Amino acid sequence: MQLYELIRRKRDKGRLSDEEIEELVTGFASGKVPDYQVAALLMAIFFSGMAAEETAALTLAMMNSGDVFDLSDIPGPKVDKHSTGGVGDKVSLILAPLVAACGVRVPMVSGRSLGHTGGTLDKLESIPGLRTDLSYAQFKKNVSNTGLCIMGQTKRMCPADRKLYALRDVTATVDSIPLIAASIMSKKLAEGVDALVLDVKTGNGAFMSRTAQARKLGRTMIAIGTRLGKKVVALVTDMSEPLGEAVGNAVEIVEAIEALKGRWRPDIEEVTLALGEEMLTLAGLANSPAQARRLLMRALTRGLALEKFRQMVRAQGGDPKLVEDYAILPQPACRIEVRAATTGFVRSIDALQVGLLGVRMGIGRQTLDAKVDHSAGFLFRKKVGDRAAKDEVIAEVQGSSEARVKEAASRLPAFIIIGGTAPRGNGMVVARLDGSANSRNNHRGH
Amino acid sequence: MQLYELIRRKRDKGRLSDEEIEELVTGFASGKVPDYQVAALLMAIFFSGMAAEETAALTLAMMNSGDVFDLSDIPGPKVDKHSTGGVGDKVSLILAPLVAACGVRVPMVSGRSLGHTGGTLDKLESIPGLRTDLSYAQFKKNVSNTGLCIMGQTKRMCPADRKLYALRDVTATVDSIPLIAASIMSKKLAEGVDALVLDVKTGNGAFMSRTAQARKLGRTMIAIGTRLGKKVVALVTDMSEPLGEAVGNAVEIVEAIEALKGRWRPDIEEVTLALGEEMLTLAGLANSPAQARRLLMRALTRGLALEKFRQMVRAQGGDPKLVEDYAILPQPACRIEVRAATTGFVRSIDALQVGLLGVRMGIGRQTLDAKVDHSAGFLFRKKVGDRAAKDEVIAEVQGSSEARVKEAASRLPAFIIIGGTAPRGNGMVVARLDGSANSRNNHRGH
Repeated sequence: MQLYELIRRKRDKGRLSDEEIEELVTGFASGKVPDYQVAALLMAIFFSGMAAEETAALTLAMMNSGDVFDLSDIPGPKVDKHSTGGVGDKVSLILAPLVAACGVRVPMVSGRSLGHTGGTLDKLESIPGLRTDLSYAQFKKNVSNTGLCIMGQTKRMCPADRKLYALRDVTATVDSIPLIAASIMSKKLAEGVDALVLDVKTGNGAFMSRTAQARKLGRTMIAIGTRLGKKVVALVTDMSEPLGEAVGNAVEIVEAIEALKGRWRPDIEEVTLALGEEMLTLAGLANSPAQARRLLMRALTRGLALEKFRQMVRAQGGDPKLVEDYAILPQPACRIEVRAATTGFVRSIDALQVGLLGVRMGIGRQTLDAKVDHSAGFLFRKKVGDRAAKDEVIAEVQGSSEARVKEAASRLPAFIIIGGTAPRGNGMVVARLDGSANSRNNHRGH
Repeated sequence: MQLYELIRRKRDKGRLSDEEIEELVTGFASGKVPDYQVAALLMAIFFSGMAAEETAALTLAMMNSGDVFDLSDIPGPKVDKHSTGGVGDKVSLILAPLVAACGVRVPMVSGRSLGHTGGTLDKLESIPGLRTDLSYAQFKKNVSNTGLCIMGQTKRMCPADRKLYALRDVTATVDSIPLIAASIMSKKLAEGVDALVLDVKTGNGAFMSRTAQARKLGRTMIAIGTRLGKKVVALVTDMSEPLGEAVGNAVEIVEAIEALKGRWRPDIEEVTLALGEEMLTLAGLANSPAQARRLLMRALTRGLALEKFRQMVRAQGGDPKLVEDYAILPQPACRIEVRAATTGFVRSIDALQVGLLGVRMGIGRQTLDAKVDHSAGFLFRKKVGDRAAKDEVIAEVQGSSEARVKEAASRLPAFIIIGGTAPRGNGMVVARLDGSANSRNNHRGH
């Protein structure tokens, strides 16, 4: 293969064929194609973009570079949800057991904290004994027996994507919509799902802070799915303030269990149910959003969703008594309350800054091999739109290091703006995209 | 140094500081900065461009990565000429001895054939015994004693540029005006010249086929020179048909010697004298183009320029009797005449196609380690504007391989268009650029 010619063509806004992309990815994964040529090509893609065919071919080639799960012998619809990442986004922990309780099989290969955003695996691992490094066989067994499993990517899944991501990460070529879309979709399609619901975050706590970019990412992923024969729907949802009350690891496990017990903040409820409606509809278990919502609410109120969560924890090695006894989770050595400096309405909570503060506290990782502090976290007792009286507790900061907690608590008030009037609420779902002309737009002011 | 940050900033059209560029080039040359990050940065530069300060800093850093000649103890003005490359461009072989005969010191570090264009070193090496791989000491001695020397880049000149060029060559990042300009200027300024005249070729036989691009390259190189304290003037000259009569190696040596004897084609004469006027003026040896031209013509008609050529050949190990006896040069085993298929005027000779045909004949190199055929070449007996009768010889093709000569002779007629009327002549000098507002434009129809 003349890689030079591919770089030149992409540089000049030309198109690469499916065969060329397949050969490129295979050659790169095997080490035959040198890093420096791929780096130049990635930067050319950053500027020139990729056509839908090219993005699909890249996805397929990366998916086929490793194990592709075959769950076809498990009866029932296999549907997963993927979020592009946010702050306080514990939706997977609630949604997966909730839809599994309705009959959907949820084979969920999830990720760790990345940049300022949290990671579902890091959150789950705050449950003592719980394993997320399962084998394909164990994963499949859990999906078959329990109806759901949340684990990390195995070393044999999408090795080409992993190698390519590592190169993008050091060459400033991460922020490319076709490359992001292909990377996400290659991993999701390797799970062996029939359909996929995407939660594309927008707002300052999201990687795609502008809604136009979030929509474009959503549309690109839907186009990939369509080309590769999978049903994909995307919701663009708000990430301008942290989602729910808790931001952290153990604290988000608690908030997820509380939600499964029917006690949830309206923002979490809205996003979780909207995504759940899509999953049930794609799974063929409901004919309308209204019917889907009735099924979801029944699973929730009857405790079936909580039971699924309990089963999942047990199947992955954790102690299911956790759902009744949160003291099983790592407890913080230090907790500090943050109080309102003035009376008024919470006008904004800066999700990006909270996320970055969280990384410093040990919620996420500053270096790849850093250990997370499972007990570290924020609890936002007042959310945007809530009224706070002067000196009332608006947030709590906790963790294992007193110094870090103190530092975070002293910085946090700058990121919570309190004003004289309540901001107008816009709803959490900004847009619904399904690849058809019917994609809904909630016309929010982003 | 955070190379990631430099890539990201350049990707986003930001600017790199002098110190960052210096550190980058030093790190790359020493192997500390990995190829893949530099490759991504080069592609970002391809798209985002570079400011004048950045281009000058890059030039300086590449120049300082190796030996920088110090000719300050040689009395008299040191001025060089550099051409961006063309087909049949033997101007250096005529111009260097011509201006040296007028008192200019010409320290000329020249190149080999590149792509479809010829190389001054390859031409000179068709003279038996003549060496172009001289040491700095020998080069300096020749410039001091003879007034001129034409040699190849030593291994210790601009090693960072050589390494960077090799990376650009395999990552499709050669065609970037700031990178081209910095590469040329780093090598030229390392020669230790006081001033430089650039011959920026335009037309289909040039690397910058469009005049706007050629002008931009010229302006960029002038800006670098100005920032680094050197006087630089650029002429944009025509390269839409091969320059002069001969295209090859030994054949161009003969044409150059003939020119030094006062027998030259008008196109060669016009370009050589225009560049010579600039060199003499920059050297302070003439106050006006007219005065410079008088000095040049006197050196030519008195045989002083030819004598300088003879001295140069002797000083570099060649046989100076060559100027009287062309049989000293390698002789072709085969020669074929190409005749006009119809009566009319030569309307065009496709310089690019002639150059590419020349590479196949062995005038240039198809691979880096290929050997050139010094006897191979074309002789254009009729040039654009000349009248040709049916069956009259319009060109000759020669070389050491009969098969190659036959193939080239059969293909050549397709690249020489003969029509019923003579095309309008436009003059060879398209524009003169000197960095001031006085840059002259000959308003040609490119």
